[in-house]
Amino acid sequence: MQSDVKVRLMAFTPSPDGIVAAAAGLCYSASSVEDLIDRFKGEKEQKEQRESFIKKLRASGHLSPFEHVSFTFAVEGISRACSHQLVRHRIASYSQQSQRYVSMKEPGYVVPASVKNDERALSLFEEAIQKAHEAYKALAELGVPLEDARYVLPNAWETKIVVTMNARELHHFFSLRLCRRAQWEIRNLARLMLSEVRQVAPGIFDVAGPSCVTKGKCEETKPCGKPYSSMEDLLCWE
Amino acid sequence: MQSDVKVRLMAFTPSPDGIVAAAAGLCYSASSVEDLIDRFKGEKEQKEQRESFIKKLRASGHLSPFEHVSFTFAVEGISRACSHQLVRHRIASYSQQSQRYVSMKEPGYVVPASVKNDERALSLFEEAIQKAHEAYKALAELGVPLEDARYVLPNAWETKIVVTMNARELHHFFSLRLCRRAQWEIRNLARLMLSEVRQVAPGIFDVAGPSCVTKGKCEETKPCGKPYSSMEDLLCWE
Amino acid sequence: MQSDVKVRLMAFTPSPDGIVAAAAGLCYSASSVEDLIDRFKGEKEQKEQRESFIKKLRASGHLSPFEHVSFTFAVEGISRACSHQLVRHRIASYSQQSQRYVSMKEPGYVVPASVKNDERALSLFEEAIQKAHEAYKALAELGVPLEDARYVLPNAWETKIVVTMNARELHHFFSLRLCRRAQWEIRNLARLMLSEVRQVAPGIFDVAGPSCVTKGKCEETKPCGKPYSSMEDLLCWE
Amino acid sequence: MQSDVKVRLMAFTPSPDGIVAAAAGLCYSASSVEDLIDRFKGEKEQKEQRESFIKKLRASGHLSPFEHVSFTFAVEGISRACSHQLVRHRIASYSQQSQRYVSMKEPGYVVPASVKNDERALSLFEEAIQKAHEAYKALAELGVPLEDARYVLPNAWETKIVVTMNARELHHFFSLRLCRRAQWEIRNLARLMLSEVRQVAPGIFDVAGPSCVTKGKCEETKPCGKPYSSMEDLLCWE
Repeated sequence: MQSDVKVRLMAFTPSPDGIVAAAAGLCYSASSVEDLIDRFKGEKEQKEQRESFIKKLRASGHLSPFEHVSFTFAVEGISRACSHQLVRHRIASYSQQSQRYVSMKEPGYVVPASVKNDERALSLFEEAIQKAHEAYKALAELGVPLEDARYVLPNAWETKIVVTMNARELHHFFSLRLCRRAQWEIRNLARLMLSEVRQVAPGIFDVAGPSCVTKGKCEETKPCGKPYSSMEDLLCWE
Repeated sequence: MQSDVKVRLMAFTPSPDGIVAAAAGLCYSASSVEDLIDRFKGEKEQKEQRESFIKKLRASGHLSPFEHVSFTFAVEGISRACSHQLVRHRIASYSQQSQRYVSMKEPGYVVPASVKNDERALSLFEEAIQKAHEAYKALAELGVPLEDARYVLPNAWETKIVVTMNARELHHFFSLRLCRRAQWEIRNLARLMLSEVRQVAPGIFDVAGPSCVTKGKCEETKPCGKPYSSMEDLLCWE
Repeated sequence: MQSDVKVRLMAFTPSPDGIVAAAAGLCYSASSVEDLIDRFKGEKEQKEQRESFIKKLRASGHLSPFEHVSFTFAVEGISRACSHQLVRHRIASYSQQSQRYVSMKEPGYVVPASVKNDERALSLFEEAIQKAHEAYKALAELGVPLEDARYVLPNAWETKIVVTMNARELHHFFSLRLCRRAQWEIRNLARLMLSEVRQVAPGIFDVAGPSCVTKGKCEETKPCGKPYSSMEDLLCWE
Repeated sequence: MQSDVKVRLMAFTPSPDGIVAAAAGLCYSASSVEDLIDRFKGEKEQKEQRESFIKKLRASGHLSPFEHVSFTFAVEGISRACSHQLVRHRIASYSQQSQRYVSMKEPGYVVPASVKNDERALSLFEEAIQKAHEAYKALAELGVPLEDARYVLPNAWETKIVVTMNARELHHFFSLRLCRRAQWEIRNLARLMLSEVRQVAPGIFDVAGPSCVTKGKCEETKPCGKPYSSMEDLLCWE
């Protein structure tokens, strides 16, 4: 069965914008933390003040306060190719479904658009996946341990993973993985993650992504030639 | 003015026990994350099941799921001697009041019990602090920048800091800093932090601290000779 | 073609035992660093003194000095299943051959012993690999980008990776990945890495591995029942 | 006694430029690691090719290969104010002389230029330091433990520390701490560290420092107004 990526924001530090603002305020102020929390974490009338303060922090590169809030995502329906890229981000925490211990009874796999859009390619692809799954099951029946039988399963195979990143690392992740030079699957994952966090931390994630969006111009040495013009442009998956 | 340490749990990942259990469950199960959250994050009747599962995780050394939840503390009234020890823990995030930018108008300082309990020592100590503060103010008046004038301020000088650690790192922190071989000030800080997190994450922090408490026997090469007998013993500051 | 793992120690901090000893010595001594280096980094007659000091550090859990020396390995002929496990170690640095950019013209794959030892399994396995590779090539010919065509390549597919870890993280890595509960492929990789570093840092890696070897008794909650009796036992691959 | 900072490059990964180039090459090439090492690590005639390749890596933001090489510095004669800033860099390893265990018999302290250059300030400063040291000794004589007596010692007090950073983190460190907005003491430390590593890794550290030098224009939101014009300008301490 073809898998579709599903991202759910499982948990996050409450009042993320307020916490970042209060922590940053502490660095430059003689106030007590109590006062700073009152100043920043509060009611809606403070929203504007808070978001403008956060904007300044981001612009000035004073990024450490963004580490105080973190976001936990339940991710399903991504390929092992994608999860291998994902876990290369080291300032993050992961709990991934194990192919060593969990039997892959039903085929679940991710199909790239470049394959989906070409009938012959799709038919080749699905046949290859099916063959691989049959070999997996046959090996298991011969007594090969699951952890070894899975060696024939393809990169496309679906995995589930719980991911936690703090807001600073998320910004870094978005800057790399929302760039058109990243592979489509992790870009799509990043886009869904960003959509989630923007709803609960509008100040922190007001602007996020590659340099075309955050700095108004591409800083890549090999530009893709199709810079995003705005956050809306970035978030509307082509 | 003598400072007293004040610790406030400013923010934390909601339902920490449930999140850890759900993330850990994912590794070994074919279930969807949705189902795992339902299973672990829910109502009180699940409390026992959840806490027993977390206990097993801790015992088995499967610690990565504990990283998905983090805790942010507002700490005031600790010395710069203590904060220098604290920030050596690198898997953590800090926002500290700056001595470069914030003027230290009023003296605020931490007095060790070994000094407090000896009248002559206390008088020597307070005089030294006062002299240092006077020199600081005099240097500032001569036009020396605050960031340089502070070079005469003592280690005892009070600081404020916002600290975030995830539950895995907190366990590590507690194992080192609640041991009697740690200095009294950071031990006291750790004790207050532990008291806070036990209230909101009883499963995760049911047992925490040095090996005398967590393993029932001291694993130090130079034991202090006064092992804690229980969590109660550990948390009741002598 | 079946791949065999190849590990080469590409680079390392020179005089690792001496550097660790000198750095550790600094913590507890009024000596200059110069003197400590002279004391520990020098000639063979100091070897015994140095190694005995390092042994004490390890036993006492004073592990941070072990971070000052690092080791860089060129690893070839491991599967992507193995590299996915490897890169989960986050206190490390990796440069991995990209399946997005490098064309996988020739089949290179890792065969588990459980498969190798069973004629029927091996034949099933090799056929599956071959089919996957054919599908990969056919997709590429249809114009599917390499980064997408690779979705049909199996977990068994060979990869190359450069890995750097410091000695503290290596000890942690060895404690987990040399345990019989780890999968055979990463265990074998870890064993080869340990063999390499023992030659250049005999003090630091005198004893390393799972608790059966380092503590003389198994600390796993689900012991394998076949504890290693010695370093020799551990290093002689069965 | 007034202390002067002393930095010694105690150890580093040999052939740093070659290792970074070979590791980076692996990502995009079908070559064996052996071949890549031969290509990049070798003789002087390869120097130019190697350095140009590294330059491209740096420019393109492909920074992870720079993590494979690390540098260990023995630092003496910095203040505890400076070391408190230094250890905030978390992707690094530290072994610091302990004020808890080492008796501070002789006064050793750092004097800011802003104090040195003003006779009255200097006299005030030195008197304050002396008073603090006397109080320290008097407290120790009264039986106050060293770890508590040190609470009266000033931020200016000298410390010794062994620091290890990899080349990627060093670049980050230099970008922040060589900026004129950083405090003079850590700027001076960073400058000395950079001078050391440029000698052994000319390709990697050809250009390093704040954005005025590395990007040709200041990216600070509050520019200092005195951008460095070149690496020479940066390295010649005013």
